[in-house]
Amino acid sequence: MSTETTTLTVELGERSYPIVIGGGLLDSAAEHLRAVGVPDKSPLMIVTDDNVAPLYLEKLESELTNGGYRVVSAVVPAGEATKSLTVYNDLITQAIEAGLDRSSAILALGGGVVGDLAGYVAGTYMRGIRFIQVPTTILAHDSSVGGKVAVNHPLAKNMIGVFHQPELVLYDVDTLSTLPPREVRAGLSEMVKHGLIWDRAFAGWCWDNAPRLLALDPEALIYGLEKGCAIKAQIVSRDERENDLRAILNLGHTLGHAIEAVAGYGRFLHGEAIAVGMAAAALLGEERGGETGLYGETMLMLRALELPVTLPEDMDTEALMSAMQRDKKFREGKMVYIVPTEIGRVEIANDVEADAIRDIIERLKEKEESS
Amino acid sequence: MSTETTTLTVELGERSYPIVIGGGLLDSAAEHLRAVGVPDKSPLMIVTDDNVAPLYLEKLESELTNGGYRVVSAVVPAGEATKSLTVYNDLITQAIEAGLDRSSAILALGGGVVGDLAGYVAGTYMRGIRFIQVPTTILAHDSSVGGKVAVNHPLAKNMIGVFHQPELVLYDVDTLSTLPPREVRAGLSEMVKHGLIWDRAFAGWCWDNAPRLLALDPEALIYGLEKGCAIKAQIVSRDERENDLRAILNLGHTLGHAIEAVAGYGRFLHGEAIAVGMAAAALLGEERGGETGLYGETMLMLRALELPVTLPEDMDTEALMSAMQRDKKFREGKMVYIVPTEIGRVEIANDVEADAIRDIIERLKEKEESS
Repeated sequence: MSTETTTLTVELGERSYPIVIGGGLLDSAAEHLRAVGVPDKSPLMIVTDDNVAPLYLEKLESELTNGGYRVVSAVVPAGEATKSLTVYNDLITQAIEAGLDRSSAILALGGGVVGDLAGYVAGTYMRGIRFIQVPTTILAHDSSVGGKVAVNHPLAKNMIGVFHQPELVLYDVDTLSTLPPREVRAGLSEMVKHGLIWDRAFAGWCWDNAPRLLALDPEALIYGLEKGCAIKAQIVSRDERENDLRAILNLGHTLGHAIEAVAGYGRFLHGEAIAVGMAAAALLGEERGGETGLYGETMLMLRALELPVTLPEDMDTEALMSAMQRDKKFREGKMVYIVPTEIGRVEIANDVEADAIRDIIERLKEKEESS
Repeated sequence: MSTETTTLTVELGERSYPIVIGGGLLDSAAEHLRAVGVPDKSPLMIVTDDNVAPLYLEKLESELTNGGYRVVSAVVPAGEATKSLTVYNDLITQAIEAGLDRSSAILALGGGVVGDLAGYVAGTYMRGIRFIQVPTTILAHDSSVGGKVAVNHPLAKNMIGVFHQPELVLYDVDTLSTLPPREVRAGLSEMVKHGLIWDRAFAGWCWDNAPRLLALDPEALIYGLEKGCAIKAQIVSRDERENDLRAILNLGHTLGHAIEAVAGYGRFLHGEAIAVGMAAAALLGEERGGETGLYGETMLMLRALELPVTLPEDMDTEALMSAMQRDKKFREGKMVYIVPTEIGRVEIANDVEADAIRDIIERLKEKEESS
């Protein structure tokens, strides 16, 4: 793939950090760590999963060791179920046993699950140590920006977490070449989301370039990832702790999280669940007086990226409703829902009735028959 | 007791918060919550332990309910062993089931253990919600200022935590009247510590007023708590995240935590363990060229407050050394130790040899025979 490298900065005052995107970056990881001030006297811990470990762990370990760092690695089972307090506790134990101290860094080598989990370890070990994201999926372009880290509770996703910004995101696009096609599609779901909430032209670009993105064309990937990260970085810079604006990043997530929880973590990939959630939000937006064609265009875009836009008929509507009521988007008893008004623009609605959501869910099920 | 009320502010920019100290404050809790902007539309959760619950829980619950708040309560077993990930997880489950949302507050009614545990729940539930400290011990005057919250890992104390500032500390000194004498003494240990690290006159005042403090004289208590909180607030304001200065608050804690861990959490009260740690630090300080009489005076002060200053003979020196090596005071492989240079002044030493510590530990054991 390409060896072109681009760097953008997430502006967060003293917590600002660079996102480096390009090919071959795993081969220069030590240099990038030094550039952001990670000392070599304290051990580092790489957290990765058993899918990624056979592909890239040894490479990253040797690069860092050759660069003068002491490295220990922890391999966790792949999949959302690994974002649990149990696995978290195992990692804390390993970090203590390996002698990680306040100057140590934890590196997340993998996708969103590994990033959330390792980031939560870094955010809470000794009340917070350095954290480096080394994403190996497209989806992680989203989770690696913004400092939201968490594990799941059996009753609700991402319920246990903190804000903990990384010191560096090192995005080696060469690692994307080994992604299963289903993971590629699910990752593009968050990419197009950034267009749908903020930038009509970028949403259009994703649609036009869907075939190149699905084929992992390096030039298209680097552009799409950079643009997606840049949009998210802009939003996060203005509202780091989600007091208001940042909530728009949750487009599709209220229903999406409920789908994941009701189906059982892992059955729907996160990106697939939020694609359905974005379809639902577009339908709701059109009904609430949004731009004509909002739903239709959103569906076409998502379908161009080969993403699901309907619900399985057997999915229990009331179970989805209950799961949404436990989600973090409820505040002072009211439901907060991100609703598109046109492609590239959304509103934060806090007046959505439960029955309107029920109705949308039922209609997304009907749609399946005709699709 | 007295109904005099005094308020001081911990200055932390947008995270500043008031500490209200006085008698009868549980009876006006709702008013104080409103004053700091806690909304009544979202449920509150009171976390307390089974020692404190029979004494003050009903009182606080009715006061808040009468004041228009919806309240759920969680009672945990008293004692350091309750600061575990297991109890933490139970509290998160209860918070979800009670419908706590992002606008909810968690109140810690109790001592340092309840404060640390409830604060860690508040700091990580939905990535952080409001937190209110309602201390019922003298020791908690220390832990309620500064935002350090944590649970223990079986291998090391306070290993899992975050910085999460409360919105309010409501310190009703009437609740101190039911403290067992041993808890009173242990609490005064952190109070005199604030004198020993920062304010010679206050250290002298604690010594002179030891009998009044041990007898829970309200006027002496309010002055001592206010002064202790104010010293800690000054230090925390200058260095919220313990990059440098804040470390001086750890006087006596490196050895103290090791004593607690080796003896088994709960055998030594925290204040007792750090009293021994402060005696050790004074001995080390005098040997390193500190003021003449430093060790002798420190011992007399601690003894005036009826605190232990020696180690049980059967305590394993190497076990203490290992526990210290796992403690968070290690950084880049070097031991960081807070060492007094005179009464009211300490240095942050990073050149203390392990053998010097071993020697001090052995001598503190010998002392016991002659005490």
